[in-house]
Amino acid sequence: MTVTTPAGFRAAGVAAGLKSTGAKDVALVVNDGPTFDSASVFTANRCKANPVLWSQEAVKDGTVRAVFLNSGGANCYTGPDGFQTTHQVAETVAGQLGVGAIDVVVCSTGLIGLTNPRDQVLAGARAAYAALSADGGAEAAQAIMTTDSVSKQVVVEGAGWTIGGMAKGAGMLAPQLATMLVVITTDAVVPAADLDTALRAATRVSFDRLDSDGCMSTNDTVTLMASGASGITPSLDDFTAALTQACTDLAMQLLADAEGADHEIAITVVNAASEDEAVEVARSVGRSNLFKAAIFGNDPNWGRVLASIGTTSAQFDPADLDVAMNGIWVCKQSTPHADPATVDLKPREVSVTIDLKAGSARATVWTNDLTHAYVHENSAYSS
Amino acid sequence: MTVTTPAGFRAAGVAAGLKSTGAKDVALVVNDGPTFDSASVFTANRCKANPVLWSQEAVKDGTVRAVFLNSGGANCYTGPDGFQTTHQVAETVAGQLGVGAIDVVVCSTGLIGLTNPRDQVLAGARAAYAALSADGGAEAAQAIMTTDSVSKQVVVEGAGWTIGGMAKGAGMLAPQLATMLVVITTDAVVPAADLDTALRAATRVSFDRLDSDGCMSTNDTVTLMASGASGITPSLDDFTAALTQACTDLAMQLLADAEGADHEIAITVVNAASEDEAVEVARSVGRSNLFKAAIFGNDPNWGRVLASIGTTSAQFDPADLDVAMNGIWVCKQSTPHADPATVDLKPREVSVTIDLKAGSARATVWTNDLTHAYVHENSAYSS
Repeated sequence: MTVTTPAGFRAAGVAAGLKSTGAKDVALVVNDGPTFDSASVFTANRCKANPVLWSQEAVKDGTVRAVFLNSGGANCYTGPDGFQTTHQVAETVAGQLGVGAIDVVVCSTGLIGLTNPRDQVLAGARAAYAALSADGGAEAAQAIMTTDSVSKQVVVEGAGWTIGGMAKGAGMLAPQLATMLVVITTDAVVPAADLDTALRAATRVSFDRLDSDGCMSTNDTVTLMASGASGITPSLDDFTAALTQACTDLAMQLLADAEGADHEIAITVVNAASEDEAVEVARSVGRSNLFKAAIFGNDPNWGRVLASIGTTSAQFDPADLDVAMNGIWVCKQSTPHADPATVDLKPREVSVTIDLKAGSARATVWTNDLTHAYVHENSAYSS
Repeated sequence: MTVTTPAGFRAAGVAAGLKSTGAKDVALVVNDGPTFDSASVFTANRCKANPVLWSQEAVKDGTVRAVFLNSGGANCYTGPDGFQTTHQVAETVAGQLGVGAIDVVVCSTGLIGLTNPRDQVLAGARAAYAALSADGGAEAAQAIMTTDSVSKQVVVEGAGWTIGGMAKGAGMLAPQLATMLVVITTDAVVPAADLDTALRAATRVSFDRLDSDGCMSTNDTVTLMASGASGITPSLDDFTAALTQACTDLAMQLLADAEGADHEIAITVVNAASEDEAVEVARSVGRSNLFKAAIFGNDPNWGRVLASIGTTSAQFDPADLDVAMNGIWVCKQSTPHADPATVDLKPREVSVTIDLKAGSARATVWTNDLTHAYVHENSAYSS
């Protein structure tokens, strides 16, 4: 059920003392081949953490041999010294594997502006290498958790090949990428260029549509590695479909574990003039604190939905909007329709459907409600 | 201290039964001349309430004789019947004044999608007319309150002329205009075109820079009326300066009374390439739920500031950003500088300064923190 389920991968998760709790905080995922093709996507935030600055260079040739990950500190805005820590951990991992440092991706997560103690990080990298195992995926998934309450893993089976994945992320979940680190493995034979095409297609409709709290991270990284160990080359369509399923599954696990959330909310815009406009409208609603607080209060307040739609530049007639909550059309033609009291918002899963009547495109954006627990988690603790 | 302080205006605030509490809920402000010049600005939300749809037409000729306002219901997305209520109240007020309905601005505030009982609204208009008085401004200011805890009023004295104003608004305070109704009066002699120039200049740096919770309203209206009763014509510069002072004062009163807020936060961006970019960066920080929750927790979390800056398209070097909180530079050149523990965030007023080192423009955006009380007010009650 994890990154070591596909053949050709080993992983480990160890405690290096970066977390004050003594919990596991360093993970390593190694591709043993025979192929070393890879693709990655990173945060669109212009303020990028040191490991992202490093890894963007490391992935450029399409070859990745290992991904090192640490929780307990984002190594973001820690200056040249922080970059040196990233570089040295890549060197350490590479030296043990007998490869070049430029084939090692580094990911970090935790507080911004906090310097990771270099000696502990490097010792962690050595300990993780020593602990590598063909069934170490679950421990790796645990080691990358921060405020996550559960580890997130997935496996999708193809015809003789497999995709495995792990993810972390519970806050700062926003567009382009959620605040998250994701490692996806496959034993299919897929060249790097096809991995890139498939990964961009899969993340576009999964992680990119997750907008838990509107806050974009500095450290988001998704790395996909193909070992080719199954010897089977799937069609690009089949591989993309399976990869999209894996990414969507992980995204839904992130959504369900978002900090302090009481509801998972799927906002679907239908009959938009374009998919981009559908996303724009859905995202605007998903970012309305008033709407999100209303859902926390089990209040089907469609007025706050319309007020958000009106802030967008999408095509629609303001006098002809329909809105449904949990399948009940509480607003038709921009006027009250079904009695909102008939909408039961107590279940965690909430659906909002918006009919723009402007075309035939559609998209779904997922968000969470705005709760006391969200405020508590993000005010009482630095993260 | 209010809209009736300038000569030539009468006002009233009465209870028409729109609020279940029995509190005042209908206000009327009448310009008795001799001039009837006016200017107005409205919400940029494309989903506009019926009174906005009406008033946008009413103000086009630059003449306004009276502003009718009700709390207890926004009359937004209530369909053609709701528009008829707006139209009939304008007719009722106009009939009593002996003017045309098209010279009466109508404003409503309260829940979206709620039909205002027409008979009560019209009876309220008649009662308000009967109660008009040259010192009725304070009662009018009370009648437009919704979740406001205090009424907001201002007076700015010119050289022989005066500006008075009142405002309401405590939530859905966001760009372009806060969720607010504002009536400003002056006894200066100012032609409508100059009023328009002055009002746009004043709102651009006051109400437009208030972004309490990122949510744009459907009903925002600011109407400025000049009676000319002082007989004095100020220079446009003098008038604009006084009007800007009045608008800024009212905006700060709105900020200080924002729903559930514990802090008023001034985010100032300096050395930006342009004023627009300064506003873009300041607004992105002011809309970060993670940043706002950190301020609630008295946590000078500058990492969340940088993470927000990075989502903008403004000119800056991600490796050379400085951030100060309450005057202490906690981040210089995108690395940790002064110890954040030396920043005292307990006082309500918080300043954040961001140096982009990209030019010489600057701007301030005002926001509030994200608190348990905000979540409570906006989840436990429909509004």
